[in-house]
Amino acid sequence: MKTIGIIGGGQLGRMMTQAAKKMGFHVIVLDPGENSPAGQVADSQILGSWNDSESLKKIVEACDVCTYDLEHVDTSALIELSDQGHEIHPDPRVLSVIQDKLLQKQCIEEAGLSTPAFIELTEDADFAKFGFPLVQKTRKGGYDGKGVLVMKDESALVEKLPGECMLEKMVDLEMELGVMVARGIDGELVSYPVTEMTFDDRSNILDLCIVPARISADLEVKARTLAEKTIEALGGVGIYGVEMFVDKQGEVFVNEVAPRPHNSGHYTIEACVTSQYEQHIRAVAGLPLGSPEQMRPCVMYNLLGEPGHTGEPVLDGLEVCLHIPGVSLHMYGKAETRGFRKMGHVTVTSENLDEALEKALIVKKNLKVISE
Amino acid sequence: MKTIGIIGGGQLGRMMTQAAKKMGFHVIVLDPGENSPAGQVADSQILGSWNDSESLKKIVEACDVCTYDLEHVDTSALIELSDQGHEIHPDPRVLSVIQDKLLQKQCIEEAGLSTPAFIELTEDADFAKFGFPLVQKTRKGGYDGKGVLVMKDESALVEKLPGECMLEKMVDLEMELGVMVARGIDGELVSYPVTEMTFDDRSNILDLCIVPARISADLEVKARTLAEKTIEALGGVGIYGVEMFVDKQGEVFVNEVAPRPHNSGHYTIEACVTSQYEQHIRAVAGLPLGSPEQMRPCVMYNLLGEPGHTGEPVLDGLEVCLHIPGVSLHMYGKAETRGFRKMGHVTVTSENLDEALEKALIVKKNLKVISE
Repeated sequence: MKTIGIIGGGQLGRMMTQAAKKMGFHVIVLDPGENSPAGQVADSQILGSWNDSESLKKIVEACDVCTYDLEHVDTSALIELSDQGHEIHPDPRVLSVIQDKLLQKQCIEEAGLSTPAFIELTEDADFAKFGFPLVQKTRKGGYDGKGVLVMKDESALVEKLPGECMLEKMVDLEMELGVMVARGIDGELVSYPVTEMTFDDRSNILDLCIVPARISADLEVKARTLAEKTIEALGGVGIYGVEMFVDKQGEVFVNEVAPRPHNSGHYTIEACVTSQYEQHIRAVAGLPLGSPEQMRPCVMYNLLGEPGHTGEPVLDGLEVCLHIPGVSLHMYGKAETRGFRKMGHVTVTSENLDEALEKALIVKKNLKVISE
Repeated sequence: MKTIGIIGGGQLGRMMTQAAKKMGFHVIVLDPGENSPAGQVADSQILGSWNDSESLKKIVEACDVCTYDLEHVDTSALIELSDQGHEIHPDPRVLSVIQDKLLQKQCIEEAGLSTPAFIELTEDADFAKFGFPLVQKTRKGGYDGKGVLVMKDESALVEKLPGECMLEKMVDLEMELGVMVARGIDGELVSYPVTEMTFDDRSNILDLCIVPARISADLEVKARTLAEKTIEALGGVGIYGVEMFVDKQGEVFVNEVAPRPHNSGHYTIEACVTSQYEQHIRAVAGLPLGSPEQMRPCVMYNLLGEPGHTGEPVLDGLEVCLHIPGVSLHMYGKAETRGFRKMGHVTVTSENLDEALEKALIVKKNLKVISE
């Protein structure tokens, strides 16, 4: 069996590794932290950074095919390795477009797809002329609401983010949707059901993911089609998370794309015929894509570290939650909890969505990641 | 989080480990072979035998709770460790009953439960008086049809098995059924749907597992109740596989019990709300048991090494099979294939059982584990 390399050893790499090991692949993880979440379940781990060209060379040479659990990697080194004939998916050239929000949005706009109006934040850019309310975003390195600043009016200018940025029109938001899309080595495209995402007010991190989204059939088709066309425009091989805004008028806009398994696709492990992780592994290994069909309605809840708790994680309220039928717990094996750190997630499946949501809210109320 | 020790690093230990890691436990595996199937996905592996008291002491002392992936372990050493206060599930005392087929059957008979008539094979036992056709079984160490000899008449006496044995009446067999039963730390009992098992003629190893079994509602209740009562009689904590015979008159008999996840329960990973592996981990970790509900009909097919092939395994026909929606491949990461060695399995889920069976038969026809 082939050896798959995973650049980045976080929870996404961990669940990718679990899917790859299930299918019999050997897995090597590259991560700077000893005993990383993915390293714990892989055959071996190379200690090193995803921005260090030597480490990247090491993993790429040790594996038949490499992929990532994060987009913030040194793509210039990977493009060189790819040019030497090493198989890396998604193509690092695609990654370098996606990891730069400005380039990503330009690609989406050029394909004629709906995304909020934006401009590059040049030195002489005029915020007022672009118009408030707006969102300032750093071009690279942001995640989970980091590197994003909402500016309602000129008074917010004092908080302006440093570095290379872009400005985006603020959408009059009704709701946020997500769709996972997989693209196979032969260009085959498979998309998953539309998910409804709610966010944690305090941390801006995904809180609940409700699947299928409680939206009209029209809106569902619109969102799924937009997501598919976005991935067709970006290209590459693997699974992608497409986050979208819906405004008060029911228009759908691409917010941003992640070139990897995504938090809004965790639910697929329990609820779908093929999980986003297995789908990704199938894609990068050049195997046929699996069925994305959803077997049961479900709600995913992100288990964030309780603010005020730092240190070895302890789960409070676990017994109560595991007594509820359909509750599936995922912990990422992180040695230390911190406020709002993603420590795990829970997926609740049920025969009907209302019941799944009800149960997820009980879990949310009772299950806490604290420290000893 | 707790550390769970798994004694034995085969495929059952591997899938147990995957379930335990999913839930955030640390996992240490004890196995004599380097890079064992379970060791590959665990935090660490202790190299040593399950019959070596020093190795058993090492793993028990390193973990909060220990369990097994096989029943042929040195229970006297484990009973001593259990008496010293180490948590080991199922209780090694229960294991020493189950690992001896004669003691196991005596326990089942004493509870008034249906099992084929049997006697201990003493030196002066009279085969003819017990009556042909009969089955001679070694009391300990048998698995997958090994240590079992069917004797149709006196002419078979020349092939008599050596060692401590028992004789069992041959059932006029209509079909074989299986039920997984879990017992929690508080004595809570949960049973899974009844599975229909067919066996490979050449190797006597489980071939297909069809779930739900195509039987009457009456027979289903009878089999499930018998399985539950059998585990109530045997006691202990964890998951158990109960294999049963159905004769031509529709009577159900316990064939034998495995004190661990079982081949006939692999299907639960894809088809049930809680897999047999997570259920076992929940039980031994003292957590509430999960729902055994089946979400979709399914058929499991055992991937055995093709006879005539020895060496590094290669999957022939994989592309064809993965094109079929609902096909889920599990490979065990074994470095070497041999004729009839269990190398992996495939579970096919579908909205209806006939379709699942049809697809499983395509997989069976096309997918082969060969060597390079």
